[in-house]
Amino acid sequence: MSAGKQIKAGIVGGTGYTGVELLRLLAQHPNVQLQAITSRKEDGLPVADMYPSLRGRVDLKFQTPDTARLDECDVVFFATPHGVAMSQAKELTEKGVRVIDLAADFRLQDTTVFEKWYKMPHSCPDILAESVYGLVELNRQQIANAKVVGNPGCYPTTVILGLLPLLEGDRKLIDVEHIIADSKSGVSGAGRTASVGTLYSEAGDNFKAYGVAGHRHHPEISEQLNRIAGRRVGLTFVPHLVPMIRGMFSTLYTRILPEAMNTDFQALFEERYANEAFVDVMPAGSLPETRSVRASNQLRIAVHRPDNGDQLVVLVVQDNLVKGASGQAVQNMNLMFGLPEDAGLDAIAVLP
Amino acid sequence: MSAGKQIKAGIVGGTGYTGVELLRLLAQHPNVQLQAITSRKEDGLPVADMYPSLRGRVDLKFQTPDTARLDECDVVFFATPHGVAMSQAKELTEKGVRVIDLAADFRLQDTTVFEKWYKMPHSCPDILAESVYGLVELNRQQIANAKVVGNPGCYPTTVILGLLPLLEGDRKLIDVEHIIADSKSGVSGAGRTASVGTLYSEAGDNFKAYGVAGHRHHPEISEQLNRIAGRRVGLTFVPHLVPMIRGMFSTLYTRILPEAMNTDFQALFEERYANEAFVDVMPAGSLPETRSVRASNQLRIAVHRPDNGDQLVVLVVQDNLVKGASGQAVQNMNLMFGLPEDAGLDAIAVLP
Amino acid sequence: MSAGKQIKAGIVGGTGYTGVELLRLLAQHPNVQLQAITSRKEDGLPVADMYPSLRGRVDLKFQTPDTARLDECDVVFFATPHGVAMSQAKELTEKGVRVIDLAADFRLQDTTVFEKWYKMPHSCPDILAESVYGLVELNRQQIANAKVVGNPGCYPTTVILGLLPLLEGDRKLIDVEHIIADSKSGVSGAGRTASVGTLYSEAGDNFKAYGVAGHRHHPEISEQLNRIAGRRVGLTFVPHLVPMIRGMFSTLYTRILPEAMNTDFQALFEERYANEAFVDVMPAGSLPETRSVRASNQLRIAVHRPDNGDQLVVLVVQDNLVKGASGQAVQNMNLMFGLPEDAGLDAIAVLP
Amino acid sequence: MSAGKQIKAGIVGGTGYTGVELLRLLAQHPNVQLQAITSRKEDGLPVADMYPSLRGRVDLKFQTPDTARLDECDVVFFATPHGVAMSQAKELTEKGVRVIDLAADFRLQDTTVFEKWYKMPHSCPDILAESVYGLVELNRQQIANAKVVGNPGCYPTTVILGLLPLLEGDRKLIDVEHIIADSKSGVSGAGRTASVGTLYSEAGDNFKAYGVAGHRHHPEISEQLNRIAGRRVGLTFVPHLVPMIRGMFSTLYTRILPEAMNTDFQALFEERYANEAFVDVMPAGSLPETRSVRASNQLRIAVHRPDNGDQLVVLVVQDNLVKGASGQAVQNMNLMFGLPEDAGLDAIAVLP
Repeated sequence: MSAGKQIKAGIVGGTGYTGVELLRLLAQHPNVQLQAITSRKEDGLPVADMYPSLRGRVDLKFQTPDTARLDECDVVFFATPHGVAMSQAKELTEKGVRVIDLAADFRLQDTTVFEKWYKMPHSCPDILAESVYGLVELNRQQIANAKVVGNPGCYPTTVILGLLPLLEGDRKLIDVEHIIADSKSGVSGAGRTASVGTLYSEAGDNFKAYGVAGHRHHPEISEQLNRIAGRRVGLTFVPHLVPMIRGMFSTLYTRILPEAMNTDFQALFEERYANEAFVDVMPAGSLPETRSVRASNQLRIAVHRPDNGDQLVVLVVQDNLVKGASGQAVQNMNLMFGLPEDAGLDAIAVLP
Repeated sequence: MSAGKQIKAGIVGGTGYTGVELLRLLAQHPNVQLQAITSRKEDGLPVADMYPSLRGRVDLKFQTPDTARLDECDVVFFATPHGVAMSQAKELTEKGVRVIDLAADFRLQDTTVFEKWYKMPHSCPDILAESVYGLVELNRQQIANAKVVGNPGCYPTTVILGLLPLLEGDRKLIDVEHIIADSKSGVSGAGRTASVGTLYSEAGDNFKAYGVAGHRHHPEISEQLNRIAGRRVGLTFVPHLVPMIRGMFSTLYTRILPEAMNTDFQALFEERYANEAFVDVMPAGSLPETRSVRASNQLRIAVHRPDNGDQLVVLVVQDNLVKGASGQAVQNMNLMFGLPEDAGLDAIAVLP
Repeated sequence: MSAGKQIKAGIVGGTGYTGVELLRLLAQHPNVQLQAITSRKEDGLPVADMYPSLRGRVDLKFQTPDTARLDECDVVFFATPHGVAMSQAKELTEKGVRVIDLAADFRLQDTTVFEKWYKMPHSCPDILAESVYGLVELNRQQIANAKVVGNPGCYPTTVILGLLPLLEGDRKLIDVEHIIADSKSGVSGAGRTASVGTLYSEAGDNFKAYGVAGHRHHPEISEQLNRIAGRRVGLTFVPHLVPMIRGMFSTLYTRILPEAMNTDFQALFEERYANEAFVDVMPAGSLPETRSVRASNQLRIAVHRPDNGDQLVVLVVQDNLVKGASGQAVQNMNLMFGLPEDAGLDAIAVLP
Repeated sequence: MSAGKQIKAGIVGGTGYTGVELLRLLAQHPNVQLQAITSRKEDGLPVADMYPSLRGRVDLKFQTPDTARLDECDVVFFATPHGVAMSQAKELTEKGVRVIDLAADFRLQDTTVFEKWYKMPHSCPDILAESVYGLVELNRQQIANAKVVGNPGCYPTTVILGLLPLLEGDRKLIDVEHIIADSKSGVSGAGRTASVGTLYSEAGDNFKAYGVAGHRHHPEISEQLNRIAGRRVGLTFVPHLVPMIRGMFSTLYTRILPEAMNTDFQALFEERYANEAFVDVMPAGSLPETRSVRASNQLRIAVHRPDNGDQLVVLVVQDNLVKGASGQAVQNMNLMFGLPEDAGLDAIAVLP
């Protein structure tokens, strides 16, 4: 366990799944003191009344933003709908508070794209320009110094980490014009808002695709892939809904270029992630399962090349609420405050 | 298949689960012509757009009540929130339309109790007084002649049929003061309304009790049991929520009176239900499963007496949306219109 | 309902899921008389004791093959492990009994491929040569006259029907060298054999790929696609396991050829399947769900072209036990005996 | 975190669910060094190959008992079928190794009862006589000094802790002759052995009772209740199977004696468990959910008295693999070795 350093942390909007997951992780973090959690609607309600799993472990009550004194925190997490973090980031950062947004306000540098997909103007393009996309394995250095971090979307985390070794360094390994990401998510990815589509009787014992005509994570993935590859990457992205609570699986298909047919892709991935605590490149032939990372911050990758042909198939699993959201946010916090990257994130996956 | 008789049927409020289940059953019923289905909110929407399972099988569009000409129907089913059927029953019955209400408006004869539990005054006590509680196995004769039928609640169907042979005929078999019904329901019982508690991520991989302090089906069960037994029956009723879509299971506990210790309870149940098409008393020692009745109108009962002691344990399963709701409503309709009781209800359960 | 014609049907090996599903369908079929069902292991056991869903509906007991007098049937279904049907087909067909095999014995015309994947020699290549691949929408004419039908695998049914309009008639629409089928199946596809991998606690709340290095349905799909296209089709096939009981979903990715960019693919599919009772081409933009076909013989297709680009995405759903197995087998039987193709197969999907 | 004390722990038979759960807990325990894990069948296989969730966290390979040097351990856990621990306990304890058996060998002091229910003679009645039933909240003192601990069954843990305050101290509060325990378990309670009944397609979307005629946990519960109450307690016990992986829920029904009608049962429970870290008596009116303890060692209790009548309803939840098995075993170990009782057991429940 790391030294006695204690960070004061606040959470804005803690009633959703990323909020309660942040609470679970931060309440067990050796270097964090939970300072405040806000919810206008639940003002005064003990957090443990809403989430009995926290009984005896989290004593906080929900507060309104007015009384929460977030400006006294070292870091504030936004587990809010899109648009909230950008309205408060300026004030907080001016007081020296660092911000980690789990929504989309700081994920897209291109504000035109942001406005198209999120149907609202971006209210602080200057702060956005200085913010960092919080994918640690991609931007470790910049995150350490960032004042504002845009925590990646769940799908983007799997797709980007599953393609990163193939694209970076100006490599000529795959046909970057025609990449396919067939992704599958557990239902918790849709959040805790009451809606018919995510009722047990609708999503249970059922499988479907959605967002084929367009999904908000598509431009986010594309912006990052373009940046990594240094040119336009063509991506077909089809998300699907799986009748399970947690877990995300991306099956990535890409064609190997004729000149790259002799590449050892297994070695390429293993080398790229050799020093990453939370990216596990499994042995050749492995078939990762989402449950192997349930409730942990681990992401696992397996690289396949059926019949040794020209089609590369990369399988990626994560827990959408941990590495895909709140765990990754804590990983960012650790980095920003000079803590060991795995502080509070070393829980082993829950299986079965 | 029965003769060419064709009944014109209308459905009020067909967007919920009992509504779509009625559509499924009636669209396949050999003697029914679906005439109209109403929903103010979805006016103009083809039913099959909301429920693609009905594509090519149901051509109706949702209509407003104003245009639906329900008064031209032979029978109208109300698959609406409580309170709607009683506001329209008078007008319809005056025009000769018979009414089957799947909500609670005609389940409780005691309007004081109704008003206590449903928080609204009863608007047509005169029609209520003439209406019949639509549990066919209990009230076959009266249902045949009824103008208005109150279709039983899902829990009550299992509890009443599981206790009926023990209570009726002024029998002195069990301690009627202390009956326990530990009931378990699939999530579809909560309906299709968006609510946090029935989200996949809340109700999945979870088990809980609810309504321990009071559930609306409790007074309904009690009113019937009192009537059957001819005296006050004491009932503890604890409903639970099971992470499955369809299915209901009631475990009934009752103490055998000293003077009744030699009773052959298996025979008692078998004889009582010998001529009931939809009540299957399983052989001694059987363990019914909810899936054995999935999507069918069957209800199955097993009678146990552990160690041949003084405790009787009755297990009852049904599909809450069929025998517990829409199937039973169709069974009532068949009876009211002189059709074979199993017309349109003979589908075999879907297993696995 | 079709005329009084009655077919005597036998089932070999009825204890698995395709067996009980055949029983469910045939017991409700207006033109079928269930004659015998065999299982050496369960000899003498009433079928309804193993499957209580059939209580009161199927009176048969399991018999040994010796006593079952299958030679007196008009048709015998094999719901057995691979290898059984081919050992009995000769004797049965010589006595005029027609055979529908739900296993793989008559799916692959190339016996070398068969022997590679199923690890056994093919014991009746002559009968195989005369047998017909039982995909009705592809081989309607030949099936009608076939003595032996090889009922298609579940995955192949979705992939072939999802690609058929793009490949047949020597069309030049897509890059046939690089088709991707990302398929997902409910757990019942793995059968009723006890195995660790399909335990509830292993397959539940989990998602994984399997068979990436090779799956038996791959050569089956390829043989058919090659035949349809008239040349070698390149296919990457990745099956996945979904935590649901029934249901299969295939997401098919294929690249449109430059010269075919103006094709109206929606119209192409609609026209191809206009007269098919069991293939529903949904309106443009639709997102099919597996539950929309649960327990029905329907297969639904939606055709997407994201951003109107060069990537075509075809979504296909079916119930793996019905259209993907036993329902399709009954559809074949109907055709072979001159019955209406939908006889006994017109049940509406069970939703929710 | 407690001092540097390090305990060498071995596991016999670690391939089942209690085994992998022990591995998860012990690998994260600050005072435990995993020494060896045995499995004859999997000799040589790295544990993390069977359970990828342990990749990078557990380096052990399965060993045969011959090579595992269990006699060098401080404590050995038996996560084996019934009968194994009793065959090895003598040899281990003679060498000073303490034993915690997660099977039933040391749960029943009455060997006649043991032999009746487990169909094998008890091979070490002398060691059994000295062993302690490892329910910490009941036998804290004796466990601390025990050489051999019989870890309680999952159902017994919930039923005994839910009734303990009502029975101990020669209290006259309830009718002890007629207690009812209606219990519900997730499927992992049935273990990882391949069997048809616990396949996903059998146990999923289904609910059933089992063992109504007799369940091995019944005599275990009775032996403890009799001992606690100081007289014979009459118990009807009906276990049920819930389609979820982890979680156990017991609904306990008992009749309040006339002379005890003024008892404050809420206070009684709160006082009894005031100092218990792992028993949470929830506020009056609470409705515990199994997910509130998922993957944690917590057990939660709510006390209800419907309509303030004579029926007491006690609701108890736990994770059957943690407090109901491996967590409780670790709790016993902590006590036996003078560690803080919650060492390695303080993980917050995973919700959702």
